[in-house]
Amino acid sequence: MAANSSASTDVENREWYVASYAPTGVPNSEHLKLRTVSLSLRADSIPDGHVTFQVLYVSIDPYVRTQLSGLDDGLSFPQIPLGQVITALGMGKVIQSKDAKFSEGDIVLSRICPVSEFGVMPSNLLQKITPAIGIALPNYLSCLGMPGITAWVGIGKIGNAKAGSNVYISAAAGGVGIIAGQLAKVKGCRVVGSVGSDDKVKLLKEECGYDDAFNYRVETDYDAALTKYFPNGIDVYFDNVGGKMLEVVLNHVNHGARIALCGMISEYNKVWKEREGVRNLLNIVGKEVMMKGFMVSSYYNHYEEFIKEMGVYLKEGKINSKHKIYNGIESFLESLASLFSSSNVGKVILQLTP
Amino acid sequence: MAANSSASTDVENREWYVASYAPTGVPNSEHLKLRTVSLSLRADSIPDGHVTFQVLYVSIDPYVRTQLSGLDDGLSFPQIPLGQVITALGMGKVIQSKDAKFSEGDIVLSRICPVSEFGVMPSNLLQKITPAIGIALPNYLSCLGMPGITAWVGIGKIGNAKAGSNVYISAAAGGVGIIAGQLAKVKGCRVVGSVGSDDKVKLLKEECGYDDAFNYRVETDYDAALTKYFPNGIDVYFDNVGGKMLEVVLNHVNHGARIALCGMISEYNKVWKEREGVRNLLNIVGKEVMMKGFMVSSYYNHYEEFIKEMGVYLKEGKINSKHKIYNGIESFLESLASLFSSSNVGKVILQLTP
Repeated sequence: MAANSSASTDVENREWYVASYAPTGVPNSEHLKLRTVSLSLRADSIPDGHVTFQVLYVSIDPYVRTQLSGLDDGLSFPQIPLGQVITALGMGKVIQSKDAKFSEGDIVLSRICPVSEFGVMPSNLLQKITPAIGIALPNYLSCLGMPGITAWVGIGKIGNAKAGSNVYISAAAGGVGIIAGQLAKVKGCRVVGSVGSDDKVKLLKEECGYDDAFNYRVETDYDAALTKYFPNGIDVYFDNVGGKMLEVVLNHVNHGARIALCGMISEYNKVWKEREGVRNLLNIVGKEVMMKGFMVSSYYNHYEEFIKEMGVYLKEGKINSKHKIYNGIESFLESLASLFSSSNVGKVILQLTP
Repeated sequence: MAANSSASTDVENREWYVASYAPTGVPNSEHLKLRTVSLSLRADSIPDGHVTFQVLYVSIDPYVRTQLSGLDDGLSFPQIPLGQVITALGMGKVIQSKDAKFSEGDIVLSRICPVSEFGVMPSNLLQKITPAIGIALPNYLSCLGMPGITAWVGIGKIGNAKAGSNVYISAAAGGVGIIAGQLAKVKGCRVVGSVGSDDKVKLLKEECGYDDAFNYRVETDYDAALTKYFPNGIDVYFDNVGGKMLEVVLNHVNHGARIALCGMISEYNKVWKEREGVRNLLNIVGKEVMMKGFMVSSYYNHYEEFIKEMGVYLKEGKINSKHKIYNGIESFLESLASLFSSSNVGKVILQLTP
């Protein structure tokens, strides 16, 4: 249902919920369903300390898939209970507020925004942002938001990438990877990425400053590919995919290499015992590799430092942000599935309000 | 051949050499052979800057096995060339010296001591030690030597074990593990170890202060064992075995756990593609685990700090050193094989001179 501009009445609110879990495979319309619920936006029906908002954008990220399996073997995010609305990082525009810190028209972010057209939430779960002039709102869900700081943490805080480092990034045209590679270039690294389509190879090399890139669906002998693209070995690996690629990387790391484990999208659609086993962890000993997993939420205390640095890069045109926008609440399922098919380029975002 | 006490003549020197590589399995008498070679100990036949010595003890450590496979898929130690004498950490007594810094009777250590009865080496590859009163020489190959600093690095520098940490140690009655657990106890941790015999379980609990220990050959359901012994999860894992146990541990780690990868003895007798694949590395992401491999040689700059600390613990009786001594050069093969059969307790040492 379209937004009601006065927004002081009830609305028919469409929202995605979990009808059944998908332990394996890509979740589809049997698992995730759209329903319409009545939501009161009248001031007298909103509790104190709450805010109602119209959802503008929802960030579509691989980790969400791990909350839809019904299993406890993925990332450590809680499973979304059956029947409940799916939540994700999202951005909204305040309709009414029962908290003096928020006013009608404010732009707010929430890490547990409902995938719906409207929302009512306690204000302490919302963060107000003041968009800078000339910066389109979706950037606050990409380079200036969660994917941006994720890339920044993995390349800098964990990967410790320095001038001259040989940096490898998998899922390099994804929401995080595309920024990670550009950040590594800013630091003077040699950067190569792997992606799932030739178009993405072109994009990384021509628009994102990557030194090289390859399509892992074409160059399926990963060992040969890494031999070719990293003649001097790998110093930093920003891992977004896990599995087989991680194993091959461990045969190409240099002494003292650092591996930032950001996510393992190749493994999310399988139960853990079916996941790809990595057989060569002994290389971590002999080459004294440091491998560290991270959840960006643990690094938000660095947000000011991040945003200051990233702001400069954006201003100087050193970071090229790419968004793949899906339109309308109906497109959620398609946008989520796109993460697993290499069909998206850059940050996948669902736009709910034209 | 017994040592010649005047030692100024030629000797018939027995030494172990690599006859053929053992890519899989435990190396045996087809791969490693004993031969007798004439060695001149006459002063006029020793080059300047060299020292001759009688070998007293050789440290028998799992890493040596990775130098006997003929493959480059183990630790990063070089393969010992076919036909050449095997080298290891060893201790000797100087017979003659053509370096003013060494004198007859000095006790010396070398990280590439030949597994032989006598040796001639450049003096810069030898380290002179002055044994403290009351400290038996084998301690300089265990708690005060390489295994000691290895344990100290893994528990402290990498594992960052602190009072209250739940610490798990595999191969816990081995040369490194037995010291690692005691160091963790000194720091106030709760320590549980896994070993391959009931005798070792008893030893760890009764003589080494471990809070608990289990026999992995009896409690073969590792998941059930770790559930039982770590009801509050694992904060620090000192890994000496790799493979299946590492995988199970990753299902029991707490958020922010630290894993020191010291070695992977369960995997040394297989080529890498036959090694156990670890399928649940995704837990490293969700639980923000730090996993770091290390080679103790990179930490010798901390030797003074280590020896000062360890010296105090030994003096205060907080570290109980255990040695399994094999006697005579003929016993080398048996002592090496014992590392893979759970038949040794504590540091395995080959004694060459009665």
